[in-house]
Amino acid sequence: MYLIITYDIGEERVNKIRKILKKYFMWVQNSVFEGEITEGKLTQCKLELEKVIIKEADSIYFYRIENRLNYRKVVLGVEKDMTGNIL
Amino acid sequence: MYLIITYDIGEERVNKIRKILKKYFMWVQNSVFEGEITEGKLTQCKLELEKVIIKEADSIYFYRIENRLNYRKVVLGVEKDMTGNIL
Repeated sequence: MYLIITYDIGEERVNKIRKILKKYFMWVQNSVFEGEITEGKLTQCKLELEKVIIKEADSIYFYRIENRLNYRKVVLGVEKDMTGNIL
Repeated sequence: MYLIITYDIGEERVNKIRKILKKYFMWVQNSVFEGEITEGKLTQCKLELEKVIIKEADSIYFYRIENRLNYRKVVLGVEKDMTGNIL
């Protein structure tokens, strides 16, 4: 399946969250990751994230798209490439 | 169609962008809007956004999902409600 992940995380924890997401997905915009993933890897990724987030304050959305033919991305302005960013 | 909109906008312009997006979509996370929209309204929204953004610096992604049955959202942590935020 294909996933779009957006997040809003406390400043102190945001780099840790990005480091985890970077292992599984592509970093495509400041607060957005994307990528194809298996069910098993996704479970593993969520477990790692759950250890870091504060459930009452932080927010991560997983938009899960079963069929990529059903989804299209349009960019206004710059298509960012964050993959080179060092955390 | 259903849209997920994510953005990374220069500080000086971000409130203007949010004000425009708020007219057409629901504000669901700090840098994310969502909603059902018609082709005509979407064109109108993009025209408004294009007047404000600096194309070389700002970035807005429109993830367009034709069939909502093909998409699922999973939340880790808080499901944010930003609609009450005043800009």
